Amino acid sequence: MTDRSRLDGHTQELAEIQRIVGEKGWSTDPGVLSAYTVDETKSYRGRSCLLVMPKTAEEVSAIVAVCARAGVPIVPQGGNTGLVGGGTPDGTGAAIVLGLSRMNAIRAVSAQGNTITVEAGCTLLEIQKAAEEADRYFPLSIGSEGTAQIGGALSTNAGGVQVLRYGNARDLMLGLEVVLPNGEILSTLKGLRKDNTGYDLKQIFVGAEGTLGIITGAVLKLFPQPRGFQTALVGLSNVGEAMELLSRLRTATGDAVSACELMSRTTLQLVLRNVPGFSDPMEDVHEWYLLVECSAGDNQDILREILETELAEALERGAILDAVLAENEVQRATLWRMRHTIGESRKPEGVCLDHDIAVSPADVPDFIARASREVHAIAPEGRLCIYGHIGDGNIHFRVLQPDPREGSAHAWDDPDYTARISAAVYDTTLSMDGSISAEHGIGQAKVEKLEKVKSSVELALMRKIKNTLDPQGIMNPGKVLVPCPSERPSD
Amino acid sequence: MTDRSRLDGHTQELAEIQRIVGEKGWSTDPGVLSAYTVDETKSYRGRSCLLVMPKTAEEVSAIVAVCARAGVPIVPQGGNTGLVGGGTPDGTGAAIVLGLSRMNAIRAVSAQGNTITVEAGCTLLEIQKAAEEADRYFPLSIGSEGTAQIGGALSTNAGGVQVLRYGNARDLMLGLEVVLPNGEILSTLKGLRKDNTGYDLKQIFVGAEGTLGIITGAVLKLFPQPRGFQTALVGLSNVGEAMELLSRLRTATGDAVSACELMSRTTLQLVLRNVPGFSDPMEDVHEWYLLVECSAGDNQDILREILETELAEALERGAILDAVLAENEVQRATLWRMRHTIGESRKPEGVCLDHDIAVSPADVPDFIARASREVHAIAPEGRLCIYGHIGDGNIHFRVLQPDPREGSAHAWDDPDYTARISAAVYDTTLSMDGSISAEHGIGQAKVEKLEKVKSSVELALMRKIKNTLDPQGIMNPGKVLVPCPSERPSD
Repeated sequence: MTDRSRLDGHTQELAEIQRIVGEKGWSTDPGVLSAYTVDETKSYRGRSCLLVMPKTAEEVSAIVAVCARAGVPIVPQGGNTGLVGGGTPDGTGAAIVLGLSRMNAIRAVSAQGNTITVEAGCTLLEIQKAAEEADRYFPLSIGSEGTAQIGGALSTNAGGVQVLRYGNARDLMLGLEVVLPNGEILSTLKGLRKDNTGYDLKQIFVGAEGTLGIITGAVLKLFPQPRGFQTALVGLSNVGEAMELLSRLRTATGDAVSACELMSRTTLQLVLRNVPGFSDPMEDVHEWYLLVECSAGDNQDILREILETELAEALERGAILDAVLAENEVQRATLWRMRHTIGESRKPEGVCLDHDIAVSPADVPDFIARASREVHAIAPEGRLCIYGHIGDGNIHFRVLQPDPREGSAHAWDDPDYTARISAAVYDTTLSMDGSISAEHGIGQAKVEKLEKVKSSVELALMRKIKNTLDPQGIMNPGKVLVPCPSERPSD
Repeated sequence: MTDRSRLDGHTQELAEIQRIVGEKGWSTDPGVLSAYTVDETKSYRGRSCLLVMPKTAEEVSAIVAVCARAGVPIVPQGGNTGLVGGGTPDGTGAAIVLGLSRMNAIRAVSAQGNTITVEAGCTLLEIQKAAEEADRYFPLSIGSEGTAQIGGALSTNAGGVQVLRYGNARDLMLGLEVVLPNGEILSTLKGLRKDNTGYDLKQIFVGAEGTLGIITGAVLKLFPQPRGFQTALVGLSNVGEAMELLSRLRTATGDAVSACELMSRTTLQLVLRNVPGFSDPMEDVHEWYLLVECSAGDNQDILREILETELAEALERGAILDAVLAENEVQRATLWRMRHTIGESRKPEGVCLDHDIAVSPADVPDFIARASREVHAIAPEGRLCIYGHIGDGNIHFRVLQPDPREGSAHAWDDPDYTARISAAVYDTTLSMDGSISAEHGIGQAKVEKLEKVKSSVELALMRKIKNTLDPQGIMNPGKVLVPCPSERPSD
């Protein structure tokens, strides 16, 4: 096992890697590297001996082969928008950062085949646009879609706001090109919708956060471009009514609901306060808001009618308190911008504990009630910024310190205090058989938690897979899995 | 490695297995065993030393532990409806057959969570019915759904007629319970729609045909119960028009097309001739037929209008030649029974070479034209019974001998002749980057072909996974992967 704290032995290999990519493809400039060694949340600051930006899968293959020979660790990095420190290196400086940004070609679009073949460094937005140009639709949509790259999105099995109808990144993937930890290229880029010939190897790499290989390309599913959307914002007094409304709308529309996003009042308030350009969307203040959208073909008018009828009936029953339908694309865009800026709206608000959890959709109301109670038992002053994809049971349960404008909140600087709050959220999740990472992954942030929440059978099998594919442990070390005591590199 | 041709050493283990399941759970009666040792196509006749029918995952676990200790091979078997000999033992008699039929409980249905938790031995039809009772919809539908079990369907990643909208078996799976080759139980039955905590281990077992472990239970996705269906049968002169019509209908209906099945005239003819109760559905004879269906909520009427409009326009353009819409559920059921009896309709027709292939949907017309030409160059007398799921690019390309009523066809008894015909179909498929097994799997039938069509990187990785999970090679030996020369059991 390589001693990762010393690089002296690798001068030759680093030079070889630089030759592989040519002078435009690498940097050791600390000013350049600094952007690649700290994560989006600024919680993980690492070091790296070399940033390398290959242009082709063959270059990636050659680089990995050199690293495999010499035991040099590799941290693959996409748009660096991850929220768990999965794409940045540790503090030893032993690892190279392998950025995929220069591999950003759209290789092919097939409108008839409903597929798009892309390189790992394409951003989600670029893929959405390329699909649109072919009159097709690529539904993977997250707040950071202008920066997040498809390689990273697949490596973290990204979710987002359209999972309800279109599925996670995994469900949108028909084929992958992966450079394995020994430098070999595994290619399954045929664009087939059905192929039951042996083990479906590509599945292993989705959600593996770059610890089993480097995704360099993918074939993705496309869908018919919707001819329009019907979008409503609903005000409610409780989450149970939101679940019930979603269930009714799915049935009534023939399952045309493509997004259904819950937001607590506090969540909306932070957007109104911290992001310019919004006004309160309803006259009255409501405890909960639901942003719901159907995608339509030539049946737009009837979908609007169905939506209006269901909402009117729900109002009459008292199940909901208010509802507005977007009258045009501008209003629709405003509602979505409101949803997509939740992420940034917390920045001026001080300490924010983010918990990306999932439970069975049936348990969402109960989870929110219980987790809120548990958190407030510890921190009655904590502000609950709750939002998420209720159709998937995926709740972003954020706990914020009291408003920093109203005085200091020293307790929140105490890591023991905030750890107790987070533990309350995760314990509630686990007591309901939920997931402590619904869509953000494990990265560095939850690598030790994973040990506690997975069964010994699961952990053993994960380690077996890791050791089978990457026996030297060079691929994104320290992410997802902690090495077994016997496997820890000897320092 | 166990010598599989001798059983004498395993008397004690077989007795132990019998004790685990109790007297209702096993048989060595050759009359009973015979139904479990021959496959659906009657092409693979094997032997077995013991049929064991456990009732719980714990019993399966205990049985596998005994087998692992003694190196006894295990052949897991569901409804035994597979078409590639994947569920029946080889001729040595060394293996036990482990049937899942007694594990047929519906463990839970959650209408609010849109999930159903089932044991592996539930038939697809039982699951569909249990979902319906909860006002939910389970879309996995294949001709053999009354007999095929979900464990087998997941192990072969079954497809069927609704993949276009709802996906393959893999896409419908949210969690699995699997007994690993060492007897441990891996359980991921939480029913979460999103869970990015480490490697998604359950994916490995889907489509692995029981060679990596035994699926004993699953959590599956449910959908809103459609309030109705709009179903049409269309007559066309060529396949390109069928693809174009599908594309238009998907866009116009807001992607509500749930099934789109192509049938050649010969295919329909065999159903009309060999299955009682059908009459020719259209006045004129057409070369191709397309069965297309939309599933709807409260928008049924508008979907019917859209369908009518699109079909009328296509008729006017000359893109299609005729169309009938099902006026009621009886007519719809007749159309579907026509489709679902294609499988059995070939039985009195003599030699039938079945090829379950997939290409990119964009290549379907070209594939059909080229494969037909290649086959007829070898066997001008061959009847082409072509049908399949064109939205998925999955074509069942059957080549039948000349009508046996019109005299003998000796050439078709010559395996070299039929092999040349099949080679023409597969070579055409491979030349178009297609799959030689779209939905039936590899089993015994295509195990040697797999070696030829997969890259060395793919084969090596499959073998690594197999050896990691099942180092003794006891799980369904001889299926999917041929052991490497060095791994072959010494006889």
